[in-house]
Amino acid sequence: MKVPLGFKFSGINSGIRIKRKDLGLMYSVVPATAWGVFTRNKVKAAPVLYDMEIIQDGKLQAILVNSGIANACTGEKGLKDTKKEAELVGDTLNIDASLVAIASTGKIGPSLPMNKIESGIGLCVENLSEEGYEDFSEAILTTDTIKKMAHESFFIDDKEVNILGISKGSGMINPDMATTLSFVVTDLKISLPMLKLALARATENTFNMITVDGDTSTNDTILIMANGLADNSEITRENEQFDEFYTHLYNVLGRLAYLVAKDGEGATKLVRIKIRGADGFSEAKRAGKTIAHSMLVKTALYGADPNWGRIMAALGYAGIKIDPSKVDIYMGKKIVENGVPLAFSREEVRNYLGQKEIEIVIDLKIGVGEAEILTTDLTHEYININTQYS
Amino acid sequence: MKVPLGFKFSGINSGIRIKRKDLGLMYSVVPATAWGVFTRNKVKAAPVLYDMEIIQDGKLQAILVNSGIANACTGEKGLKDTKKEAELVGDTLNIDASLVAIASTGKIGPSLPMNKIESGIGLCVENLSEEGYEDFSEAILTTDTIKKMAHESFFIDDKEVNILGISKGSGMINPDMATTLSFVVTDLKISLPMLKLALARATENTFNMITVDGDTSTNDTILIMANGLADNSEITRENEQFDEFYTHLYNVLGRLAYLVAKDGEGATKLVRIKIRGADGFSEAKRAGKTIAHSMLVKTALYGADPNWGRIMAALGYAGIKIDPSKVDIYMGKKIVENGVPLAFSREEVRNYLGQKEIEIVIDLKIGVGEAEILTTDLTHEYININTQYS
Repeated sequence: MKVPLGFKFSGINSGIRIKRKDLGLMYSVVPATAWGVFTRNKVKAAPVLYDMEIIQDGKLQAILVNSGIANACTGEKGLKDTKKEAELVGDTLNIDASLVAIASTGKIGPSLPMNKIESGIGLCVENLSEEGYEDFSEAILTTDTIKKMAHESFFIDDKEVNILGISKGSGMINPDMATTLSFVVTDLKISLPMLKLALARATENTFNMITVDGDTSTNDTILIMANGLADNSEITRENEQFDEFYTHLYNVLGRLAYLVAKDGEGATKLVRIKIRGADGFSEAKRAGKTIAHSMLVKTALYGADPNWGRIMAALGYAGIKIDPSKVDIYMGKKIVENGVPLAFSREEVRNYLGQKEIEIVIDLKIGVGEAEILTTDLTHEYININTQYS
Repeated sequence: MKVPLGFKFSGINSGIRIKRKDLGLMYSVVPATAWGVFTRNKVKAAPVLYDMEIIQDGKLQAILVNSGIANACTGEKGLKDTKKEAELVGDTLNIDASLVAIASTGKIGPSLPMNKIESGIGLCVENLSEEGYEDFSEAILTTDTIKKMAHESFFIDDKEVNILGISKGSGMINPDMATTLSFVVTDLKISLPMLKLALARATENTFNMITVDGDTSTNDTILIMANGLADNSEITRENEQFDEFYTHLYNVLGRLAYLVAKDGEGATKLVRIKIRGADGFSEAKRAGKTIAHSMLVKTALYGADPNWGRIMAALGYAGIKIDPSKVDIYMGKKIVENGVPLAFSREEVRNYLGQKEIEIVIDLKIGVGEAEILTTDLTHEYININTQYS
């Protein structure tokens, strides 16, 4: 894997967490054109409020991320701590503090241990290297069980361009507008308006289509930095080069979203819910998310139980346009036609549902709206993880 | 407990389920003024569609209920079967079929075994008695672990009036407009418009305020029969007598709703979520239901974990008006003030949350809207119950 030119990374243990990396830094050797999308939750963590303000300039050079503490619901002190972090990173790297974004993930409520963060920042800067992305991706995890990275390489104007994306996320996953934490770096040269457009479009079609538990986080953030060192002629409009870049950005975010869903807390399987024939995209998305959030559907999936009636019930309360006598449902094969069950082998469908990745297709047959939601099952392990988190 | 005058009940095993009562009948010796409220789920079971039609006349004399099969998503056959059931009950009781309502609860998808139902109806009629309400209340249960009855006795015009209510419900509980199955009988004499008003108002303030799993059923039904045998002067407007009746009807439905919530699938505790200071009643209700539906909140409650941050996150995505820096949260005592945590003894709050019935108060401090939602925790046993239901 080739790291985009001019980016360095590190991830270290600062003492917020016991014997685990908990502080990560990513840095571009030159200021990068940058943008971000953030949670729509009205209760926003301090670093989200901070980043939303500084990102307005469209420039970033470094991002500091800690895990273990979300710095959410921390009042004025939380905002002051965030600002202090940016100043410390700026001082240590000898760059302007306004070029430093901050992200946090972990428990809501506690304040950051600023003395530990301060010495941790020094260590992060010392450890910066091109190969440091593995350490960085480890430092930002919480209940995640796998590191989440995605990479794409392509050519624009005969110049090689690389995109590297890194995410975390396993619980409190129902991204709305943004996601759990994701960071994307590229050496592409692109104007700020075009970068905003590409990020917004790719987010809507990837992260906003996954859900683990229906809980939208207070800290969801995607930040992207494009430092231009690939030296292509700058992309400033929706031309062929933009489309090329968008395709690869979509692939990176799509892969990361897939990894976040796959690593959903306690999940034993990944479920792709495909809605067809809805009255428009937003109705299709709503139908898919309602099914994906139903605890009864999620537990049936855990048990590989072809209990399609629970899907019908969820469709009925989703608040969408529906004619129950038209609905078709597929689990490997068509098992419901026009709202009533076909004769099917329970054993065969149970075997299909027993796989690690499954697909459920619902055709409402009243329009042309389509959407695809990625979700997980609801398991004993989910309960174990979440009964004693704090 | 005194049964309202002129009502008889029975509950028997018809063979739909193995060695468990599965068919119940309630009967008034004279036609009763009657009304019903039904699920707002757009996928409605056949008996719901049937009852919604026949109830328009405002008269009922008998209600037949089976458990084990919901007769939902059964297409034309389901509607035909329901009509046949009403005809069989009418013939056997020698009353008009249009005076017979039907209700079903259980698995979605399968059709009713009509030969078993037919002989079962004969047995039900044979067994009718004033004391049969216990058998009836048992016959309508599914995953419920307790029978659910409530009774009130009072005087109007020096005439004794009795109200008896019987419910079932444990899973797929998020009543919207009605509930899981509930049946209320009274010997009160009351006009149809006043009965409708009392039922609608009492339902909104009781059953529509509980949620177990956020899944609104396809079969939710409340039916009420008032046969007038108490011989009071008929209630025809909102006078003192109406208020007296309403208070007792509210008590009966409130008690039944409490029992349904308390018996929530796998629940170890009942949680009363009180929202205050919201921007109106509907925002308060929405805030309460959003918190009650959060899997992260529900699992924390199971673990008696004072993880108030998850409540803040839920408030943030509830789609209501909120100022995070004003929110107070109480768990036994105030633990969050103006959006940030107070110093509190975790042990003390854990002990409070460890009780079988707890109260969480959230004061948004931006308006005067209030609502109280009853819900349950999310447990390993919930997963056990729902992985292999069908």
